[in-house]
Amino acid sequence: MKKFINSPEDFIPEVLNGIYLAHAGKFNFVNNDLHCLVSTDKHLGKVAIVTGGGSGHLPLFLGYVGKGMLDGCGVGDVFQSPSPEQILSITQAVDSGAGVLYLYGNYNGDIFNFDMAAEMAEFESNIVTATVIAGDDIACPPASTGEPSRRRGVAGIFFAYKCAGAAAAQMLDLANVQRIAQKACNNIRTIGVGLSPCIVPRIGKPSFHIGNDEMEIGIGIHGESGIRRGEKLPANNIVDELMGNLLADYPLHADDEVAILINGLGATPLEELYLVYGRANQTLKDAGIKVFKTYVGEYATAMEMAGLSISLMRLDDELKQLLVHEANTPMFKQFQGE
Amino acid sequence: MKKFINSPEDFIPEVLNGIYLAHAGKFNFVNNDLHCLVSTDKHLGKVAIVTGGGSGHLPLFLGYVGKGMLDGCGVGDVFQSPSPEQILSITQAVDSGAGVLYLYGNYNGDIFNFDMAAEMAEFESNIVTATVIAGDDIACPPASTGEPSRRRGVAGIFFAYKCAGAAAAQMLDLANVQRIAQKACNNIRTIGVGLSPCIVPRIGKPSFHIGNDEMEIGIGIHGESGIRRGEKLPANNIVDELMGNLLADYPLHADDEVAILINGLGATPLEELYLVYGRANQTLKDAGIKVFKTYVGEYATAMEMAGLSISLMRLDDELKQLLVHEANTPMFKQFQGE
Repeated sequence: MKKFINSPEDFIPEVLNGIYLAHAGKFNFVNNDLHCLVSTDKHLGKVAIVTGGGSGHLPLFLGYVGKGMLDGCGVGDVFQSPSPEQILSITQAVDSGAGVLYLYGNYNGDIFNFDMAAEMAEFESNIVTATVIAGDDIACPPASTGEPSRRRGVAGIFFAYKCAGAAAAQMLDLANVQRIAQKACNNIRTIGVGLSPCIVPRIGKPSFHIGNDEMEIGIGIHGESGIRRGEKLPANNIVDELMGNLLADYPLHADDEVAILINGLGATPLEELYLVYGRANQTLKDAGIKVFKTYVGEYATAMEMAGLSISLMRLDDELKQLLVHEANTPMFKQFQGE
Repeated sequence: MKKFINSPEDFIPEVLNGIYLAHAGKFNFVNNDLHCLVSTDKHLGKVAIVTGGGSGHLPLFLGYVGKGMLDGCGVGDVFQSPSPEQILSITQAVDSGAGVLYLYGNYNGDIFNFDMAAEMAEFESNIVTATVIAGDDIACPPASTGEPSRRRGVAGIFFAYKCAGAAAAQMLDLANVQRIAQKACNNIRTIGVGLSPCIVPRIGKPSFHIGNDEMEIGIGIHGESGIRRGEKLPANNIVDELMGNLLADYPLHADDEVAILINGLGATPLEELYLVYGRANQTLKDAGIKVFKTYVGEYATAMEMAGLSISLMRLDDELKQLLVHEANTPMFKQFQGE
């Protein structure tokens, strides 16, 4: 394994140890458990937002805990859910009387454990919770009528964190923070492409095999199967396919405004992400769609996977105002109004 | 090649196109040349700082052009120097009457071209320039008496940008901005370790070969040879070797204060960088050295190379104050006082 690692068992505890040391004063852990991370920036009467999921996706999830975004995060081992007890202890630590929003990605393990934590929080501590589940990956089929969405939560959840976090920072109540998180999620679409696999340390071998000249369109951030496997095409052709899928899924109309995120999955250089953005920007321009805000970088990774995803969020005035609200977290910073 | 690319010839122009689109309003190019990047944030009477070098190291160099850091940057193709004419046109665009500091890494091509640009700037436009060359890579031998340093400029130049940029933002004059940049450079040490090579697009094959269970201590950011090639060791052993080399090079004493940068070379996940930081922090603590400020992430990459570097900067009160000055650039943001 081309990894800086001591042992698979110690990997995530040692990663977390480094994170607490690097960001001392910004993060604390509760319940004597490094996996239970809370912000030190607590405000009486502010709705708290808690997320969580497996490790291996930095800066997702815990990097976004801080001013203007999230209040707490539970992480499991690599690609493993945090437990209900861990989520509960975080919930108890961050609640400041206005209730707690659970905002996380659409994975069965996470849903089960957050739902159980919500019941325990109400029963044991009389804490009101609300839940919004992000499912932005259009490589999965959309919800059938009356059924829950089968779409995975991937990089687009960053937009939901940003908007809901700003709403909570602006002291909106739980119902409104939940409404905004849900509106953001309803308007986010993501699709990824993978060029190489990652290695889960406890498994010690690549999560899948892919030829040196192959790519997989629609891959998930744990290496889940995508829409199609094929020859690796020139960058412009890949972007056209990804953008075509996104625009077909919405619909988006001329003069609509969007935010866009070109997200690196881990091993893909920032140079290539910017090259991809240039083509995606042209596609939107050609369709008459306005780009309100652009993010390019690593926002939700799969450790050392080579690949990227493109996320769009369709905007209205409320989401636009929230998107440019200041955020100051250890792994994401944005100045007010930018 | 596991790259998002259309053609090797178009790679950097397409990357730059994406960068200008993504950061519209922050960057402009001059001389009708995408490789000549200047900040839109210009202040009369402020010393301007210009850097440059080869492409392929994002966010180095141009990502640091912006408020509180740099004013202009010339980039060549992947790992190629910008030309004297490109540097000159940037110099002319950013000068606001207080002179221009050239601050760049110690590579012969860059030195030759910046020196020529300095002569042309004085002769053609009567612009005063000063030069500070960063050479922080301790894998190379230090300067012999009376000879220029043979140390390469690597990730530690980020610290020099940060301190000199803050000094210029605080309206210090050219002599003082130069003095501070030189003081920063004198106190910065870096050492890297590589696990896998990168591929220069125009060459199309890996820049070197390294076994799956091998590492190279002291590798440069273009894949230059390091100090030793050997079996890949557990992370703690690697960190101990890197930190041992750094501490032996200084000297540092108990109660000295440092800033530290754990820099990913491209393909190494953020998780591993934090794990490495945990061990490096312990080493410093054991030596009685105080960590004033910590940076963990990708600051100077070699495209898709797997590996990392550790940089230290020994601090005094002046450098500390400059380090926590606000910076707001497209690829690096830090709030005032943090």
